[in-house]
Amino acid sequence: MFNFTLHNPVRLVFGKGQIASLANEMPAGAKVLMTYGGGSIKKNGVYEQVRQALKDFEVLEFGGIEANPVYETLMKAVELARREQIDFLLAVGGGSVLDGTKFIAAAIPFEGEEPWDILAKNAPIHTATPLGAVLTLPATGSEMNYSAVISMAATQEKLAFGNPKVFPKFSIVDPETTYSLPPRQIANGVVDAFVHVMEQYCTFPNAAPLQDRFAEAILKTLIEDGPKTLAHPTDYDTRASVVWCATMALNGLIGQGVPQDWSTHMIGHELTAFHGLDHAQTLAIVLPNLLWVLRDSKREKLIQFAERVWDVKAGTPEARLEEGIIRTRAFFEAMGNPTHLSAYGIESERFVDIIARLEKRGALPLGERQALSAEKLQEILTMAR
Amino acid sequence: MFNFTLHNPVRLVFGKGQIASLANEMPAGAKVLMTYGGGSIKKNGVYEQVRQALKDFEVLEFGGIEANPVYETLMKAVELARREQIDFLLAVGGGSVLDGTKFIAAAIPFEGEEPWDILAKNAPIHTATPLGAVLTLPATGSEMNYSAVISMAATQEKLAFGNPKVFPKFSIVDPETTYSLPPRQIANGVVDAFVHVMEQYCTFPNAAPLQDRFAEAILKTLIEDGPKTLAHPTDYDTRASVVWCATMALNGLIGQGVPQDWSTHMIGHELTAFHGLDHAQTLAIVLPNLLWVLRDSKREKLIQFAERVWDVKAGTPEARLEEGIIRTRAFFEAMGNPTHLSAYGIESERFVDIIARLEKRGALPLGERQALSAEKLQEILTMAR
Repeated sequence: MFNFTLHNPVRLVFGKGQIASLANEMPAGAKVLMTYGGGSIKKNGVYEQVRQALKDFEVLEFGGIEANPVYETLMKAVELARREQIDFLLAVGGGSVLDGTKFIAAAIPFEGEEPWDILAKNAPIHTATPLGAVLTLPATGSEMNYSAVISMAATQEKLAFGNPKVFPKFSIVDPETTYSLPPRQIANGVVDAFVHVMEQYCTFPNAAPLQDRFAEAILKTLIEDGPKTLAHPTDYDTRASVVWCATMALNGLIGQGVPQDWSTHMIGHELTAFHGLDHAQTLAIVLPNLLWVLRDSKREKLIQFAERVWDVKAGTPEARLEEGIIRTRAFFEAMGNPTHLSAYGIESERFVDIIARLEKRGALPLGERQALSAEKLQEILTMAR
Repeated sequence: MFNFTLHNPVRLVFGKGQIASLANEMPAGAKVLMTYGGGSIKKNGVYEQVRQALKDFEVLEFGGIEANPVYETLMKAVELARREQIDFLLAVGGGSVLDGTKFIAAAIPFEGEEPWDILAKNAPIHTATPLGAVLTLPATGSEMNYSAVISMAATQEKLAFGNPKVFPKFSIVDPETTYSLPPRQIANGVVDAFVHVMEQYCTFPNAAPLQDRFAEAILKTLIEDGPKTLAHPTDYDTRASVVWCATMALNGLIGQGVPQDWSTHMIGHELTAFHGLDHAQTLAIVLPNLLWVLRDSKREKLIQFAERVWDVKAGTPEARLEEGIIRTRAFFEAMGNPTHLSAYGIESERFVDIIARLEKRGALPLGERQALSAEKLQEILTMAR
């Protein structure tokens, strides 16, 4: 096990009706900028619940944060917050709104020339405007971590940053607010959470049996409850289970002391940047092929994954390894996330551009053992057609 | 799943050689009271490591905190800290030193008449002196929670309190510092952690499949690595695994959203108070009998426990349920913790006093379904002879 420091100060307030307690979590007297997305919160009642809970606060609003939140949009919120001297940001939405608001929080007091440097040049963040969140879409774990992924429209780039200064002070997570989400978004959330776990689990053994079992626990629960919550979207118990899995999948716990491999996400971000696919769709496309192409490098964990997560106990180790990947692909497909680009109508692929960009950024080879070379990447993308 | 709030702001710094980073965790310029136990830290090198790391701080010391820390002793530290205007408490030791130091932290600024009221009367804690910890014994999870159990010598009472104000600011956990512990203390730690999980797991099903699997993950890892670490006390990987399990067993995570049952601990505390047994010895004595006596009330979870944790898949549900309890008892015995009072030479039992005291305190019936009446308690204790 590697040395590690675990520190997660987010207050996670989970359960039915918890938005009513929002005012208790807010700093007294704060001037608030409430951020949100395309307006679904105005249809599902969350907007009303939040405004009601904040009736004693001065609240400004900034709506219109996109899925895969866009730098150019977020900078308008930064200008507004600076002009209005906002004390506190309240993100109300899914991972995109939360990620975007983390970026706004870091950019408001940013002293460098261009806040994009936080993403492109790892520019230091000395302070950030405090933020809280009301989550309405289970997927990214953004409600309980300090990471964010932001896109620039002008350059078709999608980049990540992370800093403890943008941990939400609190996040309110009421599974009932997710009942009205379209099936595609729930399916995306399940796939996203599943792949978050895989990126922290499917590397090489590192004498971390508890981390392994925690990861397997989340995967098994998603496999069990993911299809159920698609079929019964208003069953509280199943939905709460999936939502809790999504938070635990990326709140920093299961990855402590173990190697990680964020290759699937890095490749997926490029597919979103160039082809406009949903984030989780790109993960469903990349992961099964990546596991297959890197099967030698990830061999021990792939066999363990097949045995413990998919209960594949028969056959040679090679056969079990392959069966685990086959079942993973079938799971994504069954959740409604095809695993080939062609299924999304994408034919004129941008593989050359993707590989060139990752090479230019010095990102290759990828993977916990640097086994993912440009050639392997080509192989993965070709399989993804 | 019940509603819950998860909030654990402790910075857990885990791994080899981490005491060297202690100064980075301390508040600059603090006047420190370092608390410790019977002096084993002076034999195993931890004392030197800590003093070296704190060479730029003003440090006073208070040694001699007992196992099952005693109120009368702790109040001497409170007096010292008040007189010397201590800014920060640093607990160096196992769960007893940490628990004792949490009490000291709450008692220093306590405004009521008698700090014992924090334990006996649930007197409010408005503030506490900040504290940090260097853990040297895996068992209680005290390094990452806000609870403590304190004994009064005068009255032979052992009581618990908990308050977020006494969360350690940080805890440094280096598994290597535990190599020199006697086998009995490691065995106690494994049993203690195991029972902590059981108190949060073995109740009734509550539609919380991830919490269940996390609990089972810790139990399985303790079963796997507990005996190994006894046999190979200086094997880092196994020891680190057990230490991490002990932290995760009681840092508040696995118990979120589920019923809990701290009966085994409450009964165990009385056995320690009256008979002077080690804490974990009392748990080993109580738990198997308690599970048996309450087998109807805990039926579903006991069957799940047998199947998933002990891999008992054959036989009737009743047979499996019983086999799970038999294996648990055998595990405790194999770890060197007998499960009968007679094995510790205790013959003149104090059962009447124990039952009378719990009744007087209004604690009965115990259990997540209030199934543990005075009669059932008598039955459990009789089986424990």
